[in-house]
Amino acid sequence: MKVVVVVGGVGGARFLQGVKHALGPGHEVTALVNTGDDVWLHGLRICPDLDTCMYTLGGGIDTERGWGRTGETWTVKDELAAYDAGSEWFGLGDRDIATHLVRTRMLRAGYPLSAVTEALCARWRPGVTLLPMSDDRVETHVVVDDPDSGERTAIHFQEWWIRHRAALPAHSIVPVGAEESAPAPGVLDAVAGADVVLFAPSNPVVSVGTVLAVPGVRDALAKTEAPVVGVSPIVENRPVRGMADACLTAIGVDTTAEAVGRHYGSRRNDGLLDGWLVHTGDPAEVPDVEVRAVPLLMSDVDATADMVRAAFAVGGVSGE
Amino acid sequence: MKVVVVVGGVGGARFLQGVKHALGPGHEVTALVNTGDDVWLHGLRICPDLDTCMYTLGGGIDTERGWGRTGETWTVKDELAAYDAGSEWFGLGDRDIATHLVRTRMLRAGYPLSAVTEALCARWRPGVTLLPMSDDRVETHVVVDDPDSGERTAIHFQEWWIRHRAALPAHSIVPVGAEESAPAPGVLDAVAGADVVLFAPSNPVVSVGTVLAVPGVRDALAKTEAPVVGVSPIVENRPVRGMADACLTAIGVDTTAEAVGRHYGSRRNDGLLDGWLVHTGDPAEVPDVEVRAVPLLMSDVDATADMVRAAFAVGGVSGE
Repeated sequence: MKVVVVVGGVGGARFLQGVKHALGPGHEVTALVNTGDDVWLHGLRICPDLDTCMYTLGGGIDTERGWGRTGETWTVKDELAAYDAGSEWFGLGDRDIATHLVRTRMLRAGYPLSAVTEALCARWRPGVTLLPMSDDRVETHVVVDDPDSGERTAIHFQEWWIRHRAALPAHSIVPVGAEESAPAPGVLDAVAGADVVLFAPSNPVVSVGTVLAVPGVRDALAKTEAPVVGVSPIVENRPVRGMADACLTAIGVDTTAEAVGRHYGSRRNDGLLDGWLVHTGDPAEVPDVEVRAVPLLMSDVDATADMVRAAFAVGGVSGE
Repeated sequence: MKVVVVVGGVGGARFLQGVKHALGPGHEVTALVNTGDDVWLHGLRICPDLDTCMYTLGGGIDTERGWGRTGETWTVKDELAAYDAGSEWFGLGDRDIATHLVRTRMLRAGYPLSAVTEALCARWRPGVTLLPMSDDRVETHVVVDDPDSGERTAIHFQEWWIRHRAALPAHSIVPVGAEESAPAPGVLDAVAGADVVLFAPSNPVVSVGTVLAVPGVRDALAKTEAPVVGVSPIVENRPVRGMADACLTAIGVDTTAEAVGRHYGSRRNDGLLDGWLVHTGDPAEVPDVEVRAVPLLMSDVDATADMVRAAFAVGGVSGE
């Protein structure tokens, strides 16, 4: 079976683990990974979501933090602070830096991000094809009021998310460069050839939403013969992880499973979904979308695999 | 007093410590630092001699190795090896990498190396003005027979020096780019305004020789009213440190204090030196150059300061 999964970082990576576990060998899983969080820091190109997926599936993740490398050290970061080099709010570990060095060198040599990702995955062997949504530079910016001057300004998503813990109210969230971007090689073909497409329970605005903002992706999702099934990142009116509520508020969507399902909408009405999986007990009626409720907590890989099987079932595919 | 010192890496850095110690406060020391050893590795611009001087004078050097940072760790290097990223022969420490990140980012933003060096020194406060010999890219290459194919090829100095421990016979040593380079801002003015110019006991070919290869430097040395005094890096027919003998052989100069003194030559005959300081007991006759013999071992900073005072004396300056 060919499975395509639209993912962001930590939640997406854990969901992909569940997909692998539910399917077993002999299936093809392709992840379309958000790159709108990518950022240049200290001259290094950092791709948080791609790396989180790669480390998680390759056995290199720090499972407690959910991001970065296990056994990480912070020597370079401390030294950069001694140089007063800025960006000290970003967690840049020594092991992680090697990844960024290899990536940045390849990018500067002219390789597209998709080829760089493939090269990095030769080490990590994630067992899933990780495709950046685009080889072009798309960066999510957040329009806020500057806490010092009070003036309206746009800051990089990472600065908003990590430095300000998403506590500065967002007037809007813009994937800068998305309109001029193209899907990375393989993205549209994967959607067209899929047996099922899943939206991981990732942030609907800055993860799944950013992938959908790449021209051609929505159209491919509309046209594919595969069922498209989303998994709600909202459980009991709260994000399972992270601060998706702050992002949803910025685009005028309530933090409920139903509101997010309606935001994605039905394929029959120019929307995206055939099926919508919500947490047991969460009310969610989405016109022309089959909604099913199961436990949606990714407490371990078995529980996550059960979620994935339920998503397959909503889509009418067996996953065998 | 204004003192200019032409230096390379470890030996030059220790010599500069002696200059500082001999002079005390209230004097101006400017080091013209070799940058021919500089190299791009993993997308980072590495300036070994500038960094060795900066760390040594700023109290950050690993005093046992003589290069790199004290308390260094090697996490990034190990991870790069796990990516099979190459250049594993080069000792790239985690603390050191922060320096290279700051430098590389500034260079890519358009700052010249001299400005970058000044910015890095704002942290280290070496007490000496460290000037790269040039802001232009000059890279020392070594012509050797490839050990595998047997074909004549040119490799970067660092590869020859570190990877091959200078054991591959060098047919020639070429400072690539030197002819088209210009001295960094301040270099020629420092020489013109000096009260004394010293050649540290650094490698006469790939350290001092490379600085001299920058157009305008030899001319400034010929014209300055300051005496120019060299300190021999050869003691009892051996390099005090490193493999200068392999470099001298490549340019047809014997590994003796006398041969190196004659290679530099007298200012009265289109050469460079007024004075030449050699080790006690080393025979050295250099036509039209005042030669003096004192103990030349830089065993500690007091011994080094004594050497520096002897060099001042040969040049006829008091150092007070």
